[in-house]
Amino acid sequence: MNKYAIVIHAGAEAMDPKDVSPEKEQKYKQGLQQALQAGYEILENGGSALDAVEAAVKSMEDFPLFNAGRGANLNEQGEPAFDAAVMDGKTLKAGAVCSIRYVKHPVSLAYALLQKSKPVLLSGEGAEEYAKGIGLDMEDPAYFITSERKEKWEEKEQEKLAEQHDTVGAVAIDKDGNLAAATSTGGLAYQHKGRVGDSPIIGSGTFAHNDYCAVSCTGEGEAIMRGVLAHEVYAMVKYAGESLQDACTKATKLYDAQLKGDKGIIAVSPTGEIALAFNTNQMKRGYRIQGGEPVVAVWKEE
Amino acid sequence: MNKYAIVIHAGAEAMDPKDVSPEKEQKYKQGLQQALQAGYEILENGGSALDAVEAAVKSMEDFPLFNAGRGANLNEQGEPAFDAAVMDGKTLKAGAVCSIRYVKHPVSLAYALLQKSKPVLLSGEGAEEYAKGIGLDMEDPAYFITSERKEKWEEKEQEKLAEQHDTVGAVAIDKDGNLAAATSTGGLAYQHKGRVGDSPIIGSGTFAHNDYCAVSCTGEGEAIMRGVLAHEVYAMVKYAGESLQDACTKATKLYDAQLKGDKGIIAVSPTGEIALAFNTNQMKRGYRIQGGEPVVAVWKEE
Repeated sequence: MNKYAIVIHAGAEAMDPKDVSPEKEQKYKQGLQQALQAGYEILENGGSALDAVEAAVKSMEDFPLFNAGRGANLNEQGEPAFDAAVMDGKTLKAGAVCSIRYVKHPVSLAYALLQKSKPVLLSGEGAEEYAKGIGLDMEDPAYFITSERKEKWEEKEQEKLAEQHDTVGAVAIDKDGNLAAATSTGGLAYQHKGRVGDSPIIGSGTFAHNDYCAVSCTGEGEAIMRGVLAHEVYAMVKYAGESLQDACTKATKLYDAQLKGDKGIIAVSPTGEIALAFNTNQMKRGYRIQGGEPVVAVWKEE
Repeated sequence: MNKYAIVIHAGAEAMDPKDVSPEKEQKYKQGLQQALQAGYEILENGGSALDAVEAAVKSMEDFPLFNAGRGANLNEQGEPAFDAAVMDGKTLKAGAVCSIRYVKHPVSLAYALLQKSKPVLLSGEGAEEYAKGIGLDMEDPAYFITSERKEKWEEKEQEKLAEQHDTVGAVAIDKDGNLAAATSTGGLAYQHKGRVGDSPIIGSGTFAHNDYCAVSCTGEGEAIMRGVLAHEVYAMVKYAGESLQDACTKATKLYDAQLKGDKGIIAVSPTGEIALAFNTNQMKRGYRIQGGEPVVAVWKEE
């Protein structure tokens, strides 16, 4: 008998604790609590893992301190652009979008593609037109640009690579034992126009299979893509019989010589076991397992 | 001691033999021979697997009957758009592009990104501007549109889904034992603007790791992406100890209930063993192993 459960992340990367005031840390935790609650409520009411991960990620897309949707990083042109993906562990259906603007909730556009089966991945204007066509909420670029991101972008010279590659994501298992994963990001600050990271790549940032695991990654997108890390976690569980936690921990260290960089992974198993792994000094994260209390944390040691 | 070797494909999908005249079959084989020769020559002269797969794929991008570069499928707007990827099995570096136009050789843009390390994946205009910036050959849309594709597009009503999802790809091992994979496509005929298939997705259409295999896939892009099939081949070899041929054959049948669709896979191992698998009645394909003669074929039974 599985328990329903949800795990979320809002990015893992090396940060100097001095750069995070107690007030900011509290705000991060508030954003994590809200997202966890949005997803957990759905599971508690008998809803699907897919609906739960969408709700949790939407909540983080709305929260201005996380790098997805509103408050996303600005690329080298000073514009926000988004990537997102959702995968259903039962049907192996997936939906994903890359290099899109205007769409208030990129994860919901990915979810709409998943529900339609094909195409799985849409980029740029084609994706934006699709979103408009199905009546999703659209916003002007100004909606997404917070004063904090704008200031940081303008102080580019002083930028210390802090908060450069955060991403938000969620994995869940519902009362029926179905797994789902979702990931959403605003990419890197100052990234090249059109740069796509691991988040919308099925197998890299996002993967789910009911028999093995649902996985969402965060960290240095290029290293995660080249390592196909979400699928490597699945492969270790499926073919090597690793525990989910060991698979996640090993994936954050995989081919270290070639794939160095910050990495964070969250996952859930078909029995409701959860796993979190990261090779950084913090990962904004949270989880709640059926019958338990919500847990949120930022730093490694807490 | 490994042998150098190259394997190529130019698409796998169910086709009615009556739709392929003997002349057309000969032209397919001519295109395959040229591409094989372009790649093999490099290996024979001591060149790298990366240079060999780029050369073979460029040759197929130039060949007007294959669905990549010149002669690519036209999307629902009647425009050609390209996806491509290259991966280096030694460094695990990768380069990829999606939803691009104008670039004469999409695989060469992917290769240029690989050589620069970051970003790995660029989409749309950002990728096109990057290509122009580094001086790659650019062409007007008219260059890419062959009369055959144009006529087919105009006869959309009569279209029988033939030649819908061809892709070209190559995998190779060089004299130093380094592996590489490359894939390039014009996507589906009449595809949604911005639709991206498996070809540029590291782990799905393209993957390489020196210790295990280099893999390039073709077929129904959505099914290959959802199955992350190139990486599944690697995982079966790495964790389940499968032979490369068994891994490729099993990957074409993986999760058949959820991932049905045409699939073709080519691969090469660190010892120069080659593998080809497809679940269709044809895959345009070829290979040449050090010291051997070139082999090309179209139909399953030949």
